[in-house]
Amino acid sequence: MDQIKQVAIVGGVHGNEFSGIYLVKQYQQQPEQVSRRSFTTETVWANPEAHYANKRYLHSDLNRQFKTVDLANPNLCNYEQSRAKVLNAQLGPKGNARTDLLIDLHNTTSNMGACLILTQAGPFYNKLAAYVKMKMPEAIISRDEDHFAAEEHALMCTLGRYGVLVEVGPQPQSVLRQDVLELMHRMTQHILDFVELYNNNALPVLPKQTEAFRYLHSIKLPMNERGERIGMVHKNVQDRDYQPIYPGDPLFTLFDGTVVKYEGEQVVYPTFINEAAYYDNNLAMSLNEKVLIELEE
Amino acid sequence: MDQIKQVAIVGGVHGNEFSGIYLVKQYQQQPEQVSRRSFTTETVWANPEAHYANKRYLHSDLNRQFKTVDLANPNLCNYEQSRAKVLNAQLGPKGNARTDLLIDLHNTTSNMGACLILTQAGPFYNKLAAYVKMKMPEAIISRDEDHFAAEEHALMCTLGRYGVLVEVGPQPQSVLRQDVLELMHRMTQHILDFVELYNNNALPVLPKQTEAFRYLHSIKLPMNERGERIGMVHKNVQDRDYQPIYPGDPLFTLFDGTVVKYEGEQVVYPTFINEAAYYDNNLAMSLNEKVLIELEE
Repeated sequence: MDQIKQVAIVGGVHGNEFSGIYLVKQYQQQPEQVSRRSFTTETVWANPEAHYANKRYLHSDLNRQFKTVDLANPNLCNYEQSRAKVLNAQLGPKGNARTDLLIDLHNTTSNMGACLILTQAGPFYNKLAAYVKMKMPEAIISRDEDHFAAEEHALMCTLGRYGVLVEVGPQPQSVLRQDVLELMHRMTQHILDFVELYNNNALPVLPKQTEAFRYLHSIKLPMNERGERIGMVHKNVQDRDYQPIYPGDPLFTLFDGTVVKYEGEQVVYPTFINEAAYYDNNLAMSLNEKVLIELEE
Repeated sequence: MDQIKQVAIVGGVHGNEFSGIYLVKQYQQQPEQVSRRSFTTETVWANPEAHYANKRYLHSDLNRQFKTVDLANPNLCNYEQSRAKVLNAQLGPKGNARTDLLIDLHNTTSNMGACLILTQAGPFYNKLAAYVKMKMPEAIISRDEDHFAAEEHALMCTLGRYGVLVEVGPQPQSVLRQDVLELMHRMTQHILDFVELYNNNALPVLPKQTEAFRYLHSIKLPMNERGERIGMVHKNVQDRDYQPIYPGDPLFTLFDGTVVKYEGEQVVYPTFINEAAYYDNNLAMSLNEKVLIELEE
């Protein structure tokens, strides 16, 4: 029977997302909060130098450095690429990790509440999603699992045999909000409780169907031919993460006043709307479809 | 009779406060929006390199570099200290400025709405405050004017013969929100309209009393003897800028769960609650008293 023996809770992969950093500190001071009988929990602060610099990262995004081929490439040697190799040695190695479950704690400036992001598919994840949503109905389940084999996945959480992201917002970069910290703590506690029950084969009856959002693709801010932004997210979309966008709905307002509408044919559900960290790549939001996670008998 | 002949609208003194940067760009593309018959308006982007670096500043806070003695000190030569000297030559010189009114556009991560900050006292400011509040009742008037002579004031806006800050939030650092941009635009338009009426001696009847908040002092986040933060702003205070704090009300939550209460004897009104940029100095919020701006007959 599948057993989760080693859990890692990782905070501060991004230096200006404060909740995970402070939650890991809290857990280090009060380890009983993350202790359960059937497994061992360790807590890791992934990117201290980025935090000291009050930035997302020093040289490159740490949460994009965990492809198996990159971890094996000695020429990738900047600070975050080096941190990835160290974390891989500490918690991995990826593909044969001593960490059974890696919980990676993140913040977003978008109005996404407490969001559990699943980056791989499988019965463990389906049961986890059903449990968390049952215990915490305001939680959002997000699936981004169908696009890569694990070894091609660049995210930190793919270092573990299982891995999830806890993504909580809205919180500005470089700010610590008590309400957001508490949401992150609550979701993390539910995940740990789930693992304890899973290990003991003592899960309660779980809902057969759980609503989730499945990532489709991202869309960019309006730009001119020189790559300059010429518009912004329309105010009707701002803060309305997970709310449907219908064909013809406004998406952007250009700085000359023009409204740009959504021209897709499918109803979509946005996430990471106007996330600060994605401006680097001129990303305006992610689009998702609503799906159901179905538990097998 | 006092006349305002030259107005400067300044954006991007802080590189990660996006509204002012984009509003200045908008005004440069559509100069008719800031044109009035009785005065000339110029628009200035104060700190481009900080914006390109996606930071508040490169070397030091530009909005603390405008003391007269510092502007005259050739040894202060980092990027922002140099920008201050250049802007002083362009728009000043401070104390004898060719700019009659400097409008400096800022964002805060705090829930402060559209706030007009007056850094000097006098009838011009009192009338301006009364006009803006009358035209835009949701505007907040903030006074921080009694603490310095102008030459000791370090703020950018003190470069002009008159100067005000337009401070709008909440907006995360490095994000552009349409609603916040529009608030900033509206307040700026009311200021320009006021100047036009002021110059023409055509002001409407203004309210004799206008509510405002007067800065008292700032308070720090809880820290231990090593200077490490040991707590955060209490969730009951978060987002409640301008709402009264009474003696005994919760102010902070320590990471061990302890609630720290406000022990002052006076009812105070907080601003800049949990502002991201003030973590550098461990500032939790500013405290203010409520005052009335009275117009003389």
